[in-house]
Amino acid sequence: MNINGKAMRTIWVKPDGFPVEIIDQTALPHELKIVALKTSDDAAYAIQAMLVRGAPLIGVTAAYGVALAMRDDASDASLEEAIELLAAQRPTAVNLKWALEEMRRVLSPLPVDGRPRAAFKHAAKLATEDADMCRRIGVNGLEIIREIAARKDGKPVNILTHCNAGWLACVDWGTATSPIYHAHNAGIPVHVWVDETRPRNQGASLTAFELAQHGVPHTLICDNAGGHYTQRGEVDLVIVGTDRVAANGDVANKIGTYLKALAAVDNGVPFYVALPSSTIDWQMPDGAAIPIEERSADEVLHVSGRAPNGKVLSVAITAPGTPARNPAFDVTPARLVTGLITERGVCAASADGLLSLYPERRSGGLAVA
Amino acid sequence: MNINGKAMRTIWVKPDGFPVEIIDQTALPHELKIVALKTSDDAAYAIQAMLVRGAPLIGVTAAYGVALAMRDDASDASLEEAIELLAAQRPTAVNLKWALEEMRRVLSPLPVDGRPRAAFKHAAKLATEDADMCRRIGVNGLEIIREIAARKDGKPVNILTHCNAGWLACVDWGTATSPIYHAHNAGIPVHVWVDETRPRNQGASLTAFELAQHGVPHTLICDNAGGHYTQRGEVDLVIVGTDRVAANGDVANKIGTYLKALAAVDNGVPFYVALPSSTIDWQMPDGAAIPIEERSADEVLHVSGRAPNGKVLSVAITAPGTPARNPAFDVTPARLVTGLITERGVCAASADGLLSLYPERRSGGLAVA
Repeated sequence: MNINGKAMRTIWVKPDGFPVEIIDQTALPHELKIVALKTSDDAAYAIQAMLVRGAPLIGVTAAYGVALAMRDDASDASLEEAIELLAAQRPTAVNLKWALEEMRRVLSPLPVDGRPRAAFKHAAKLATEDADMCRRIGVNGLEIIREIAARKDGKPVNILTHCNAGWLACVDWGTATSPIYHAHNAGIPVHVWVDETRPRNQGASLTAFELAQHGVPHTLICDNAGGHYTQRGEVDLVIVGTDRVAANGDVANKIGTYLKALAAVDNGVPFYVALPSSTIDWQMPDGAAIPIEERSADEVLHVSGRAPNGKVLSVAITAPGTPARNPAFDVTPARLVTGLITERGVCAASADGLLSLYPERRSGGLAVA
Repeated sequence: MNINGKAMRTIWVKPDGFPVEIIDQTALPHELKIVALKTSDDAAYAIQAMLVRGAPLIGVTAAYGVALAMRDDASDASLEEAIELLAAQRPTAVNLKWALEEMRRVLSPLPVDGRPRAAFKHAAKLATEDADMCRRIGVNGLEIIREIAARKDGKPVNILTHCNAGWLACVDWGTATSPIYHAHNAGIPVHVWVDETRPRNQGASLTAFELAQHGVPHTLICDNAGGHYTQRGEVDLVIVGTDRVAANGDVANKIGTYLKALAAVDNGVPFYVALPSSTIDWQMPDGAAIPIEERSADEVLHVSGRAPNGKVLSVAITAPGTPARNPAFDVTPARLVTGLITERGVCAASADGLLSLYPERRSGGLAVA
């Protein structure tokens, strides 16, 4: 997607093949800072310090981290050392481990002198596959927006989204944002209500930023306001991303998603969830069993931003000693979800709906009622 | 209610009759700053700069402002000048005008030398009447909490509240908080989930502060988290305040209230609204017609707090130029409201429910279906 009018991805290799570059997302939205990754240590740091975030982008960064290690030393020992280092940076990120296994699978059988070139090539392939996965989600979701636009008589389709399921979390396009970018690029007038998404404010700092850079009309609102606009007819469609979809179609996503789904259903507004199929947990029977990460209370008690003197800092919003809790996700029951937008198409949020798109899962380990 | 273990009101007169003192609520929760009001100008400034806020407290402060003017000069001209000055500070505050009219009604007929004493006495009466109104709301709401506690086998009753409908907005007790304080004082174990209440964070800065000072167990959460806890059985009851109740029982309250009502109903949790009857707008047939104040986008784009160096300042959470909207209230339809807790008792959120408590309104100007 565009930044300052120029098409970008979240990670790329300089035209002469070195170094790898990324956008330092910890500096957004206050500064667009490009960081060079010259070694596997650089890549490990970028993952650990969250210069890159979002499961797909973390995986691709790790793949390039292996390539950078191969450039310095393509021995078996170096390969194993790089994989071990990179895997340790975000221990719970499934995508990270998957990408590293991919690199090992491709590189191990090769002669040492063929590895550096093959490593960069395979990392690039993983990046492009992710971008293409997101592109296909967008093409499928575009039809939903197009149908609503046909009833709006030229007025913008108002779309509410929560958190950042945008291209900054992926390589390009994003998941929830991909149908929106596709509609915008196709000349369909859209306007996005961007939820701030406390406590980490990913909506305010990332989604609003990337929509602005790509020229998509949008308005930031507090997480409290989405219900009001939905009730007053100013939301035509809700699209969110997800961290995990259970086999019955229940959706775990950023805390607050459930409330927006309730408002959508209460007002007859369609509520869609966009996801690559890797997000479907076929072993998880329903959402009630999905473990909900509880993060530090400090995120609730503090807000980060740009002070009047230009410095970025964190301010405490309560009296010292205030107790707080910080569940990072909630579960939206499948009954509230109009449909799931995947790279294969759109389906109902149900076991039958999911299996209609992924019939190869019918004979899977879990009997899905 | 208590601050630092000592019973306080939000406004009082020093024991020797002068000056009037208030808590500077703009300094909360970072500092407990007591400000002396020595003149009607001081009172006007306190209202205008929101050192005091909340309709009941604004009215009582204005009444004391008139008393302070009478102390300096009890002439007719001084009385009219003070009323005009004070009324101009918050032009839309109905309670402010009502309190000033009360003062004029009582003082005008009196001889000049009797006015100062009578003015302080009547301002004190208005303060005590408000405190008593809130106390009665609490006594009525206490029964709801007591019934739930009886089913909880000694475990705390978990109550979710939104914004600050606390004693800091009134003279004492508050509205939504009054049943909670009464339950706590009666030895019923309660625990309050306090919504942060973006954009102005009244939950984080005022409700959490006042509950902590009175010793009521509570936990601050982001506005996004209430649905999750309601869904997981960790909310037994929701109690909120209101800015205006329509004749059919629809409730206008701080933005975000509607989302919590949806979550309560989706999970079979009772959702109550606490209010003095002065909040009922008998001329407003339903909530759809209630005008929703749109406040400055700056409140969405900035957050105020205490920087690491101890200074209180405001930080920008978005890139410059981000468009934002800031509706201050939303409307919760009466169908989602379990009941209204007023100074006269608890009733259904419906025209019939309201008229059962206020039968004198049956012959009112508006035919309520």
